Amino acid sequence: MASLSVSRHSHLLSGLLPARSKPTSGPTRVRMSLRDDGPSIAVVGVTGAVGQEFLSVLSDRDFPYRSIKMLASQRSAGRRITFEDRDYVVEELTADSFDGVDIALFSAGGSISKKFGPAAVDRGTVVVDNSSAFRMDEKVPLVIPEVNPEAMQHIKAGTGKGALIANPNCSTIICLMAATPLHRRAKVLRMVVSTYQAASGAGAAAMEELELQTREVLEGKPPTCKIFNRQYAFNLFSHNASVLSNGYNEEEMKMVKETRKIWNDKEVKVTATCIRVPVMRAHAESVNLQFENPLDENTARDILKNAPGVVVIDDRESNHFPTPLEVSNKDDVAVGRIRQDLSQDGNQGLDIFVCGDQIRKGAALNAIQIAEMLL
Amino acid sequence: MASLSVSRHSHLLSGLLPARSKPTSGPTRVRMSLRDDGPSIAVVGVTGAVGQEFLSVLSDRDFPYRSIKMLASQRSAGRRITFEDRDYVVEELTADSFDGVDIALFSAGGSISKKFGPAAVDRGTVVVDNSSAFRMDEKVPLVIPEVNPEAMQHIKAGTGKGALIANPNCSTIICLMAATPLHRRAKVLRMVVSTYQAASGAGAAAMEELELQTREVLEGKPPTCKIFNRQYAFNLFSHNASVLSNGYNEEEMKMVKETRKIWNDKEVKVTATCIRVPVMRAHAESVNLQFENPLDENTARDILKNAPGVVVIDDRESNHFPTPLEVSNKDDVAVGRIRQDLSQDGNQGLDIFVCGDQIRKGAALNAIQIAEMLL
Repeated sequence: MASLSVSRHSHLLSGLLPARSKPTSGPTRVRMSLRDDGPSIAVVGVTGAVGQEFLSVLSDRDFPYRSIKMLASQRSAGRRITFEDRDYVVEELTADSFDGVDIALFSAGGSISKKFGPAAVDRGTVVVDNSSAFRMDEKVPLVIPEVNPEAMQHIKAGTGKGALIANPNCSTIICLMAATPLHRRAKVLRMVVSTYQAASGAGAAAMEELELQTREVLEGKPPTCKIFNRQYAFNLFSHNASVLSNGYNEEEMKMVKETRKIWNDKEVKVTATCIRVPVMRAHAESVNLQFENPLDENTARDILKNAPGVVVIDDRESNHFPTPLEVSNKDDVAVGRIRQDLSQDGNQGLDIFVCGDQIRKGAALNAIQIAEMLL
Repeated sequence: MASLSVSRHSHLLSGLLPARSKPTSGPTRVRMSLRDDGPSIAVVGVTGAVGQEFLSVLSDRDFPYRSIKMLASQRSAGRRITFEDRDYVVEELTADSFDGVDIALFSAGGSISKKFGPAAVDRGTVVVDNSSAFRMDEKVPLVIPEVNPEAMQHIKAGTGKGALIANPNCSTIICLMAATPLHRRAKVLRMVVSTYQAASGAGAAAMEELELQTREVLEGKPPTCKIFNRQYAFNLFSHNASVLSNGYNEEEMKMVKETRKIWNDKEVKVTATCIRVPVMRAHAESVNLQFENPLDENTARDILKNAPGVVVIDDRESNHFPTPLEVSNKDDVAVGRIRQDLSQDGNQGLDIFVCGDQIRKGAALNAIQIAEMLL
């Protein structure tokens, strides 16, 4: 497991009680990840919430590498990171950082991706970009490995030929992990999504602000509002992304547009209402589905039980369904509340409730699964 | 304003920071509410969260009364309550409690309503019941005063003729306050609702548990789980109501069935996914509407701006939309995110986001508005 000496996170930010330990194989495990035949990799934005999770997931999955560069802004350069028992110094990101790098994992915001992504590609690097900068670029594959791996089948690492691959928005990934297996069976015509999004989607500082505000409110003090311009503790609000002229915010339009691109289906109708809730690191989504073909709830549940990267938690008797806390630090997206939609005739409608770790499958894990397909 | 000496509530439970003061007229105000020509009233469940809010709303609205009985279970009998500068002793609820009572406001759970509601009616009392016990009874009006006042026009207090009137479920009230004005214009065919429900819907003890758990989690301790069998702090979960054989929980089915009854429209199609979020006392709801007739978003906004009991908060430029905190302790239901639904052809679909104080308009205020119509 990655030992991140840069971590400023409390127990609350990393896992929340009740603590869940990640699977490890104990001290006798032989690490095979640092090896001469692995690619050289770079992590851009390594000191951020997703950057740190990149390291954690790389280590958990024994991702092979012959070298790894820790890149961040000038502000963070010089900080030390211990990763798989070796010490690294964070280097300042420049275009030259990518010389000799086979795969670069970017999570440093759209403007950094726009500035340095093409520079990395010019140097023969395959960039897996976590920002929205290139997602809707026709030439850039937008990939969820369980959903549309074929979109990137022409791209490999270490060939000297650079390329960009975009990691979808976290809400889109989590929704489509559950909706796609059903879509393949019965074809989704329309999808109405309401999200319950965690602080982590706005970065580590937002998670820290939620924790700080909560302490302040409990002490009867006015809450510190730096990241968001309002009280977040014991409150919720419409997603902080800019609102466009059609009344949708950018987060919602990502779900609308990215779904069409990932499914390669220009006709699929999607509406979304994206809401930020006072939860740390896992998103939840209420998804109403309308199908072209009949699909009963039992068949849907069986399909989801067999879907890769999906776990079904749907115990009506004990009222046990997915929660953000249960999926925190987990790889799988959890689905429950699977039921025939009473408001649609026949059995061409379903309601489901989905939860997924925003930092993990919503960002770092999905990117590293993409990187694994490059090997 | 009611001075409730029984209150065990911290600042967090009553209002949450930033504190908002209720409108008062200052110390020179002459109280006209205690007067000989007013009805005799009784508050059942007076020590609960809604019971206390009953007193607060009665006082805020100068509800006239010639006497008021404070009723609760044996456990709470003997406690003292100061209300409008007079001292009262909480009496144990019995069937005889209703002798000479014109109007009884019930909020003590369904089993108490079933046991004592009919007994009160037999004694000539008009019961305004906040539980679900009689809501779907064909002979009992289910009323939101701004929506269907006509359903109770045959019932008056002080005639010696008892009657039951049901207060709808909080989520239904908050949703229909916004949906009804649009329904009247364009006829709602189908409604897809996802809720973000506060702790208060499960009572004062649930609010206290959320506060306690949050303190515990922040201190790194395991959370106390008495009211709910899981961590609520920094988490969310499918509503705790029992799940029925169709996969919907009882809270969701209330929205489905009560909407049909209140709108007197057996055909309207409703689906709901009800989720409990870590917010204290106001519910939020994401509502997707499908209309029979075209309705553009500007017309919808104008309709809502003129709707009684509704306030529009829909500032796209500054990303200011309704939040639970902003409507806490407020009478009006707030609506925003009003936009044409991209997933529906033509302009026969809208998405809206609604927030309302669960204890106030979701329960106590609505009941007292009903009581006002009895005078």
